[in-house]
Amino acid sequence: MKMQPFFASLIWLLIFGTTTAFSQHMRKSDEPRIAPLSWWVGMKNPNVQLMVFHKDLGTRTPKINHKGVELLKVHRVENPNYLFLDLKIDAKTKAGEFKIVFSEPEKEDIVMPYTLAARDAKQKKAQGVTNEDLIYLIMPDRFANGDPSNDVIQGARETNLHRDSLYYRHGGDIQGIIDHLDYLQDMGVTAVWLNPVLTNDMEKASYHGYAATEFYQVDPRLGTNELYRQLADELHKRDMKLIQDLVHNHVGAEHWTVKDKPYQDWLNNWDEYTNTTYKDQVLFDPYAAQSDKRKMTDGWFVPSMPDLNQRTEFMQNYITQSHIWWIEYAGVDGFRLDTYAYNDAEYMAKWAQDITAEYPSMTYFGETWVNGMTNQAVFTEGSTINQHFDTHLQAVTDFQTFHAINKTFTEPFGWTEGVNALYSTLANDYIYKDPTRNVVFLDNHDVSRFLSIVGEDINKYKSGLTWLLTTRGIPQLYYGAEIAMKNFADPDGKVREDFPGGWKGDQQNKFVSEGRNDTENSVFDHVKKLATYRKDNQVLQTGKLMQYVPEDGIYVYFRYDDQKTVMVIMNTNEGEKSIKTQRFSERIQDYKSGWDVVAQREMKINDQITVPGFTALALELR
Amino acid sequence: MKMQPFFASLIWLLIFGTTTAFSQHMRKSDEPRIAPLSWWVGMKNPNVQLMVFHKDLGTRTPKINHKGVELLKVHRVENPNYLFLDLKIDAKTKAGEFKIVFSEPEKEDIVMPYTLAARDAKQKKAQGVTNEDLIYLIMPDRFANGDPSNDVIQGARETNLHRDSLYYRHGGDIQGIIDHLDYLQDMGVTAVWLNPVLTNDMEKASYHGYAATEFYQVDPRLGTNELYRQLADELHKRDMKLIQDLVHNHVGAEHWTVKDKPYQDWLNNWDEYTNTTYKDQVLFDPYAAQSDKRKMTDGWFVPSMPDLNQRTEFMQNYITQSHIWWIEYAGVDGFRLDTYAYNDAEYMAKWAQDITAEYPSMTYFGETWVNGMTNQAVFTEGSTINQHFDTHLQAVTDFQTFHAINKTFTEPFGWTEGVNALYSTLANDYIYKDPTRNVVFLDNHDVSRFLSIVGEDINKYKSGLTWLLTTRGIPQLYYGAEIAMKNFADPDGKVREDFPGGWKGDQQNKFVSEGRNDTENSVFDHVKKLATYRKDNQVLQTGKLMQYVPEDGIYVYFRYDDQKTVMVIMNTNEGEKSIKTQRFSERIQDYKSGWDVVAQREMKINDQITVPGFTALALELR
Repeated sequence: MKMQPFFASLIWLLIFGTTTAFSQHMRKSDEPRIAPLSWWVGMKNPNVQLMVFHKDLGTRTPKINHKGVELLKVHRVENPNYLFLDLKIDAKTKAGEFKIVFSEPEKEDIVMPYTLAARDAKQKKAQGVTNEDLIYLIMPDRFANGDPSNDVIQGARETNLHRDSLYYRHGGDIQGIIDHLDYLQDMGVTAVWLNPVLTNDMEKASYHGYAATEFYQVDPRLGTNELYRQLADELHKRDMKLIQDLVHNHVGAEHWTVKDKPYQDWLNNWDEYTNTTYKDQVLFDPYAAQSDKRKMTDGWFVPSMPDLNQRTEFMQNYITQSHIWWIEYAGVDGFRLDTYAYNDAEYMAKWAQDITAEYPSMTYFGETWVNGMTNQAVFTEGSTINQHFDTHLQAVTDFQTFHAINKTFTEPFGWTEGVNALYSTLANDYIYKDPTRNVVFLDNHDVSRFLSIVGEDINKYKSGLTWLLTTRGIPQLYYGAEIAMKNFADPDGKVREDFPGGWKGDQQNKFVSEGRNDTENSVFDHVKKLATYRKDNQVLQTGKLMQYVPEDGIYVYFRYDDQKTVMVIMNTNEGEKSIKTQRFSERIQDYKSGWDVVAQREMKINDQITVPGFTALALELR
Repeated sequence: MKMQPFFASLIWLLIFGTTTAFSQHMRKSDEPRIAPLSWWVGMKNPNVQLMVFHKDLGTRTPKINHKGVELLKVHRVENPNYLFLDLKIDAKTKAGEFKIVFSEPEKEDIVMPYTLAARDAKQKKAQGVTNEDLIYLIMPDRFANGDPSNDVIQGARETNLHRDSLYYRHGGDIQGIIDHLDYLQDMGVTAVWLNPVLTNDMEKASYHGYAATEFYQVDPRLGTNELYRQLADELHKRDMKLIQDLVHNHVGAEHWTVKDKPYQDWLNNWDEYTNTTYKDQVLFDPYAAQSDKRKMTDGWFVPSMPDLNQRTEFMQNYITQSHIWWIEYAGVDGFRLDTYAYNDAEYMAKWAQDITAEYPSMTYFGETWVNGMTNQAVFTEGSTINQHFDTHLQAVTDFQTFHAINKTFTEPFGWTEGVNALYSTLANDYIYKDPTRNVVFLDNHDVSRFLSIVGEDINKYKSGLTWLLTTRGIPQLYYGAEIAMKNFADPDGKVREDFPGGWKGDQQNKFVSEGRNDTENSVFDHVKKLATYRKDNQVLQTGKLMQYVPEDGIYVYFRYDDQKTVMVIMNTNEGEKSIKTQRFSERIQDYKSGWDVVAQREMKINDQITVPGFTALALELR
């Protein structure tokens, strides 16, 4: 038994030598393959379904001769190039490679190797991302280019590299991220979410990652599977976590299973191209027409991304197993689920249960880019508004607080406008089972950078950052937010510009203070002070929230627990304002002063507290 | 037993001779009295609590000598001018007047008469207002002056009568309403909701009715209790219903119990005047401060309307019994509950259960003038979003569809704007137990008239009316809507202008077609055609709703049941538009033509239907 870890490592090398081999090039669509790429002995669920792809395989009889591996069933489908094999793997099975032999009378056997690894007990994985964390979202092609040798991969459909166009690849990669983990850790970041890293061997706009053509390969232009695993290891060494971005709903048009579909119903097919309506309402509208429901769920997101038919079990297994594979292989800690609302709801609920059954501490949050409190909450598990169906989705990207923080600094204070929108949105938290799992953000790769939204007003911007790092939920920063990167999403995607200093030869390096101007340093310092305080103080992680009805454009709230109380006073007026402290005695109690977390100085709490215009003070009461 | 009805009538006369006596003058605050004013034998709940008011009564011992009437308990309170008596009335008690004797050694007895009536089995009452109905809201002072003799009542605090000012009384009254019931019936109205008719003996702005100074008297300037009962009778004769407007939350500052409070806690008291914040959010916000909650619920609506402390049982009985009294006395069919959110939630739930226990078919809807789907639905009974507390409130004034229909014709069509707001609002109906009980409206006495909202565009206005009369819920018209009355609520309350023709000597009489201009007649005709069709066809009352995602500014929905299908096509564009009928085949099925309910003509259903700009066609499919 003492030999086990060593043995496991040995097996690991044996197996992922194979994995490596194809990580460094673009696979051809018609290469034979088995999905999942490999599997493990000792999973809680002993069953796995292999999708085997090989020319003219469909009439053959597969055979496995490996003790502990039982071939339960063979499924033949419309396309003779596919076979689906249901395996059961006994917990005592010896790890290693074995052969699957596909035979047919009077034909030569087809033999395909398959590997079962031992699970690595020492590996951190599926730790879950919680409100103790601060997430940093990176678009890998645009953050840092740590390995120029992989910028262009011969054999790829897109080989253009144009840093001056936002629609081509720029060369950023996983090595670039690894190179800057100390920078992120120093800032107070504890989790990294990357836009999808799977191979997108598409002719155009392959950089964004949402059009996968492989499920088991990191895009060679970003690195290798091993490097991705190394990223996870490096994060874990720093007590940081890795969030993988999953796309259940669609793949790229060049995905190998699209080029040669296992069966007709593999995709959501239409007589003529039909786009989704993007109208989430039909999913819960008691008055919706069936045809509208179908268009929303089965309509395609865009013409270049075929919509997967998730109602067939083979497809479900193909998707779900790939996600389990990445947790087990790389040590992923959390998932972000792209375009959540467009998926088949029942499959997604099953998916969540399957993931949780295998990894109880794994967390996942869905992208719900919708308008309206109910529109969003209806997608969450145990939501009190959704009695009919439990999605088992733990949390969402909180677009409602996002809309609200936008309004806070772009609308004059009104009955429902300005910071009242923020207050009202949070007041609705009773419709969630657990709103503290929701991911809050000021911006991401799809929307305008918050600095531009607030008219490049640095005080408004800092107020937004203060809110982000002190409100309930799991805060998420978008790369470059800390150095005051700006720009609008429309019309030209300039929110995906390169992080200055991420490329050799960049004229500026904003990863270091000397490379940043005063404004940028003051924003960086603002983020770092708050993020560090947040990391060091449970009160901003798990502390309760109490908020007061905004008056006169001033929004006051508290985070508090048995140990500490933090008071945040957000003045959304242009001019200086004072608040009377007596109104907040329920929380201020006998505290005499407040430690300004950003300015790092103590201020006396008298009858009044004066706050400059467009400023949010975060005070630890003492 | 055969004598019973006759006997009952006799008793009735005997009792309400007394009632009449004080209906014709303003009562003085310090007059002795008993609340409820009278009661009945044979109520489901045999208990009633009398609040007796008489100078220096508190130390006396009351005695009742009337077979079947048991004095269960006597409650003495801080103020010696009050006694509370708990009575139990046996179902076999003989109806009639009896004496309550209050004695004290060495003092002369105080004797107060009290009446128990027999219930009138033939009287229609508590019928409930349902989606079979069309409600017409009348501000009694502004509709029609049927009895100029009661315009000014001597002894009232306000004796001004100024038809040229919107803040003084104009002289409209219940007789004026009775005089126009045929007009309303002819139009298709089936229920009348009057702003409160109880005495408002206030110095200023007594006309609106929301500052009651008596709970058992119709304001003498509007008529008598008997006349109010006659109004109910006249409505019932026409198969119409009466809705009474209740104000639980507050009374007028001149209310007799405010002038001489039973006890200190009778009102919600504050050290210094404190207004409510009007912020409904604190009622459900999991993060709300206690002080904010208290301010919302216990803060006063306005300084002239003391806020009743509904947490004391005497107050609860005083309010609830008065409402039961009006059902039983006048034959009220439904209640509208003013300022619902400002009341004590637990009392209101108890109130609803008490009313329903006595009158199972009684209906009531609360005014919830809030912003947000959840903000509104949280107040409704069995709302799926409110797991913690059942309000037992059947329905609300649907301010969310109101906001949405406003947006429909004031915003350009956008992702969440214009008619998409209307579509999205209705799509959220899953958060109600029964959204079809909600009262939908285009305007009321508190908001700008819809015609002004839509810039006096008659086509937009008619489209709004078509929606009102064809969507789910109970539609409510505001008096004068049918003759295209206009104006904004702010700043001068011009939405409460007199109905032209309601006063003798009015230059115009818009109750008759000859008095209306062409536009007014076309609006009147539009309302009448739709209201009549709605009254005659269950499909628009209880039929299911199906709505389609709006496209290109066109919103299509259906009402349908086993018998009929009505298709509504609302074009919110300025110009003519066509829709392809194929998209709607789920409901159009094999129908070949549509009967235009307003134009009263049949049109063929081809591949396309063309709809003029700003027009909503209502077609019965045939």
